[in-house]
Amino acid sequence: MSDQVRIIDVGPRDGLQNEKLPIPTDVKLRFIQALADAGLNEIEATSFVSPKWVPQLGDAAELWPHLPSSPLFSALVPNAKGLERAIVVGVKRIAVFTAASDAFTRKNINMSVEESLEAFRAVIEEFRAQVPGGWVRGYVSTAFECPFAGLVAPSAVREVSMKLLEMGVDDISIGDTIGVAGPSEVHSLTNTLLEVIPIEKFAYHFHDTHGTAVANVSKALELGIRAFDSSAGGLGGCPYAPGATGNLATEDLVYLLNREGFRHGVALDRLATASLEILKLFGRSPYSKGQLAQLSASGTFPT
Amino acid sequence: MSDQVRIIDVGPRDGLQNEKLPIPTDVKLRFIQALADAGLNEIEATSFVSPKWVPQLGDAAELWPHLPSSPLFSALVPNAKGLERAIVVGVKRIAVFTAASDAFTRKNINMSVEESLEAFRAVIEEFRAQVPGGWVRGYVSTAFECPFAGLVAPSAVREVSMKLLEMGVDDISIGDTIGVAGPSEVHSLTNTLLEVIPIEKFAYHFHDTHGTAVANVSKALELGIRAFDSSAGGLGGCPYAPGATGNLATEDLVYLLNREGFRHGVALDRLATASLEILKLFGRSPYSKGQLAQLSASGTFPT
Repeated sequence: MSDQVRIIDVGPRDGLQNEKLPIPTDVKLRFIQALADAGLNEIEATSFVSPKWVPQLGDAAELWPHLPSSPLFSALVPNAKGLERAIVVGVKRIAVFTAASDAFTRKNINMSVEESLEAFRAVIEEFRAQVPGGWVRGYVSTAFECPFAGLVAPSAVREVSMKLLEMGVDDISIGDTIGVAGPSEVHSLTNTLLEVIPIEKFAYHFHDTHGTAVANVSKALELGIRAFDSSAGGLGGCPYAPGATGNLATEDLVYLLNREGFRHGVALDRLATASLEILKLFGRSPYSKGQLAQLSASGTFPT
Repeated sequence: MSDQVRIIDVGPRDGLQNEKLPIPTDVKLRFIQALADAGLNEIEATSFVSPKWVPQLGDAAELWPHLPSSPLFSALVPNAKGLERAIVVGVKRIAVFTAASDAFTRKNINMSVEESLEAFRAVIEEFRAQVPGGWVRGYVSTAFECPFAGLVAPSAVREVSMKLLEMGVDDISIGDTIGVAGPSEVHSLTNTLLEVIPIEKFAYHFHDTHGTAVANVSKALELGIRAFDSSAGGLGGCPYAPGATGNLATEDLVYLLNREGFRHGVALDRLATASLEILKLFGRSPYSKGQLAQLSASGTFPT
């Protein structure tokens, strides 16, 4: 099995979207550039969601044209309107977002999973028609447990994944949205999904809400998975806030990968500093252990 | 394999020993009682180290007689003098502390590993002679890596473990003292040690300095290990301090065990509250994710 791992940093989108404090576009651009300089090769930079729903990412169309030409940037696209806005500014990599639980999609986007898939089918067809050579990722949320409906059967996740594959997505990100799963569940779900998802299209999106994300990554690595979403500094997952989403910190992921001998291209010291800068803006101390240990070793924090 | 796991909470000793703020004996007793009430069955309550070296635990002889009759309490005993003080107050379960790296023991106790083992041989013999039915644990520190000498060979850990077993210890705790190991190293070391350590005497003592402790526990569980040290609330491992020891939080351990279907007897809600109380004394916010998620779910924190 390959020792090369893809890291998809979703911090600029998933990490910043719930921040209350307005963040100027140029601050976001500096943060994204710092992530790129740290060696991150895939970054989800923003979302073309309605500014009414997520004001923090309302500047997607202003931000996008200022992104550097590399590394690979993608944007979340929630619907046809968002796609139109994204295509206008030249987005070539999009992500769409559904779930494995009807209760979850109904609560979040007022559709059943099936209805959300139908909506995305049209979005993806339009994208393919207008953007030759484009890339599409599908998120499957609540792949282990739904906050409204409880445990989710692996077969339900397989079903949604198959439908996304039939629509021609290039990448599927399987999400433990509320950060509850343990390694045994990862083992079982991975085996079920590998029946249908080609391993090169299979990514995991773990949240660290209960402290199991690194253990889950480790189990997935054992089973051959080589792509993981994470968020610089654990952004979007401040453990001090109730209902925190608890994104896996990219630093924690990188430390594990380094120690286990995987290649990924990210320099942990630069990454830890990039995350520290953005956390400072929010007046927040670092809380990723991988980041803290790195900053402590280099004498950067506490100052 | 059994689904029953031993949790040895070392918070009152390993967690408190480095706290600068003096903690009154009755506060410690309330904390220990709260841990017992949460269902912890094994607690390392204190150390009979010289008060000159560890002032925080200088009240060991005052504290011990006030401990309840159950659960099982043990105390660290660094030398013959400490043993004498422990026996006087009725200690029936002791722990001795060595390492797998000469550079580490020389720096810490000014002896080679071999010399420390000889010193403990006399301590254990005296203990057995004076305390029939007593119980002895041996700690093997720096089992993966030494902060002064780098990576430690599994064969060195096996060697020290064998010598401790020859001295008749009942339990061996294998420590990742600087919290750097990943699951592959745990896999490899466990296999080496199971050649000599009977599985029922085998415990792991992981530190979470870089965020890998839960992943390491998960790997050890897979390999049949059923005893783990941890510290309530991650005490002794505040990630905000440079050089933090970073104990695995008992809450993180318990969450993993719950989710993976192991039995252990600890009530996570009571434990999280007990840790919160002691952290408040230090003016510190909780940082264990297992604890934070539990407190957040019950509406206890933030208040």
